[in-house]
Amino acid sequence: MAEKKSVGIVETKYWRFAEPPDELVLRSGVKLGPIDIAYETYGELSPERDNVVLICHALSGDAHVAGKHSPDGEVGWWDLMVGPGKGIDTDRYFVVCANVIGGCKGSTGPSSPDPKTGKPYGLEFPMVTVSDMVKAQHALLTQHLGIDRVLIVIGGSMGGMQVLQWPMSYPDMVESALPVAATSRLNAQGIAFDEVGRQAIYGDPNWRRGAYYDQTPPNHGLAVARMVAHITYLSDQSMRHRFGRGLQDRDEVGYDFGPADFKVESYLRYKGVSFTERFDANSYLYITKAMDYFDPAADHGSLAEAFKGVRAKFLVISYNGDWLFPTYESKAIVRALLANGVPTTFCELPSNYGHDAFLLDDPQLTEMISGFMRHTLREVRERAAPSGGPAPGGGN
Amino acid sequence: MAEKKSVGIVETKYWRFAEPPDELVLRSGVKLGPIDIAYETYGELSPERDNVVLICHALSGDAHVAGKHSPDGEVGWWDLMVGPGKGIDTDRYFVVCANVIGGCKGSTGPSSPDPKTGKPYGLEFPMVTVSDMVKAQHALLTQHLGIDRVLIVIGGSMGGMQVLQWPMSYPDMVESALPVAATSRLNAQGIAFDEVGRQAIYGDPNWRRGAYYDQTPPNHGLAVARMVAHITYLSDQSMRHRFGRGLQDRDEVGYDFGPADFKVESYLRYKGVSFTERFDANSYLYITKAMDYFDPAADHGSLAEAFKGVRAKFLVISYNGDWLFPTYESKAIVRALLANGVPTTFCELPSNYGHDAFLLDDPQLTEMISGFMRHTLREVRERAAPSGGPAPGGGN
Repeated sequence: MAEKKSVGIVETKYWRFAEPPDELVLRSGVKLGPIDIAYETYGELSPERDNVVLICHALSGDAHVAGKHSPDGEVGWWDLMVGPGKGIDTDRYFVVCANVIGGCKGSTGPSSPDPKTGKPYGLEFPMVTVSDMVKAQHALLTQHLGIDRVLIVIGGSMGGMQVLQWPMSYPDMVESALPVAATSRLNAQGIAFDEVGRQAIYGDPNWRRGAYYDQTPPNHGLAVARMVAHITYLSDQSMRHRFGRGLQDRDEVGYDFGPADFKVESYLRYKGVSFTERFDANSYLYITKAMDYFDPAADHGSLAEAFKGVRAKFLVISYNGDWLFPTYESKAIVRALLANGVPTTFCELPSNYGHDAFLLDDPQLTEMISGFMRHTLREVRERAAPSGGPAPGGGN
Repeated sequence: MAEKKSVGIVETKYWRFAEPPDELVLRSGVKLGPIDIAYETYGELSPERDNVVLICHALSGDAHVAGKHSPDGEVGWWDLMVGPGKGIDTDRYFVVCANVIGGCKGSTGPSSPDPKTGKPYGLEFPMVTVSDMVKAQHALLTQHLGIDRVLIVIGGSMGGMQVLQWPMSYPDMVESALPVAATSRLNAQGIAFDEVGRQAIYGDPNWRRGAYYDQTPPNHGLAVARMVAHITYLSDQSMRHRFGRGLQDRDEVGYDFGPADFKVESYLRYKGVSFTERFDANSYLYITKAMDYFDPAADHGSLAEAFKGVRAKFLVISYNGDWLFPTYESKAIVRALLANGVPTTFCELPSNYGHDAFLLDDPQLTEMISGFMRHTLREVRERAAPSGGPAPGGGN
């Protein structure tokens, strides 16, 4: 039955743009090009091109949102939400997700070859920001996919930052925006945790100031960075519930520094090591910096000022158990949107699972997302109806 | 004026015990000896020997609680609380604090010479537990200082664990106990943060499985461990208030991985590096393990069972902003004490400063501690009064 609701076998596609001399000018002023973008799409673009859902991924995510690359492959990171009949229904919507630039999942990043040298950029890769990531997605949609209107841009965590950036950067292109477990800027504690992760990588002798691509990568440093970050994605409550003080395959503590004493240690070690098998340490550095730097309020004087040109409508969702991007950050977003008269709905969902709650199976979230999308599509189609007035019994 | 309230110039003293063949048998069953204990005392022991205050220090603390070692020296870690006329009034009480075994501030630990080899123990040092630390303090008091009764045992954080252990290990010796910001066992999140710190040390190539004493120590790993721990000692609110997103000596972010962009990064880097100048990485490993292992409820079946023989009265204090050792942990202690009919007072103090609040200048804490101590001393003296009944107008 589960197979029935999957988008099935999918593939990651690639598009190259910003070939010299038409490089992308990054926020820092530095030029980057050529740029490869790895992306996936599911569902069919409607003839009216009005059913586009752009999904923005979080720090360690990628373009592979749903389905599998092969029958034995891993399902995408939001397969629970995206598929036929699911919250983001691929029978109705055309779904696009692109790996962020700076990443390591197919889009150009520090592990990509530097055209100047032919070798991986390493730290020669320029710093990218959330608005640069959005710029690259915009190029993909408009220049490659022929899309000039997005029904909804949606994403959680760092994906939510991109969701906020989209209607600021391209106000005429975004019908609606749905940031989940997001913030308009990391607070001091969030920056602090990111810096701990970076320092763990800097301290790994295999890091070699980023020039490790022909040698052993700084896996231990990256694993420690992931361990500390992973704690911030969970909650005290969920960790107590799941691990408590349970011992790992032993009846008594070991009185040594060998195998893990406690289940929670073993779990974190595993999470750290397995992360190194799928992520690049330099990308981790670049993307955490992009998150730290994101701060539209500082760029514009205030968040209300930053949202001034926004024309999308918003559904803002937070989780009450999220202590990394707490609800008060979502409320600050809502206040600044309302100050601009932006139609905004806000909901704090209950969950014990901390920041990562949006990635779990949450019927409340599914229902809110699908309802908001259906309603937005109906509005769009009513507006476009030949009569000029609301279509009776309209849309869906 | 501040000078007037100081205990003045003090010195750390040393006492050696557990000389072979009379080594201390540790909880793990391993023998340790000889053992040096570094300790300080302030005030005068009363002729009745009834005014002893035993202070237990936290992870990174030491025996130097108050005063200075030289006119230009640093004041002790709880100088705000301990001194003439202060919360713990050295005009009234005889204060003792000893560095824990396993530490690196004068008491025997992994950096001490292993009598078998003459070289520092490193990882040959046996694992010590909170009850072993308490055993060593007990030896100091009874065998060296001639003290067989403690008016109050007091301490915060890991010091609070020792405070809980004392009346369990030596029920006839402790009149009262005052754990602050304590827990009877680390929760999964607390163990997880400790494990991140240890992994940061393990990953430092200079750690060399603990055998670094004649070489460069694993300072980067220890600094990262301290950085992550330091975040857990503060609170989201205090970090926002103190640092926010303020930039460090710059008008714009650097778009690089060089100097700190944000004040909070700079602060944490400083805290990490300065910690390496005063602490030993192996001691950090041993002491965090001792904290992780502490769990009287697991040892006895339940916490109420663990407290069965306790005869001390208790004042349990937590801070509402402490997310490392949250108030619910203190309440669990209180419930288990009350289940045994132990006279127990509980107070949750308001503070925005997180776990470290007990180390700051908090008049509420000062008043509660001094009141509890005065009252306890009065009770003791009334009980000891020649009439056998309450002394009219009694004690203090």
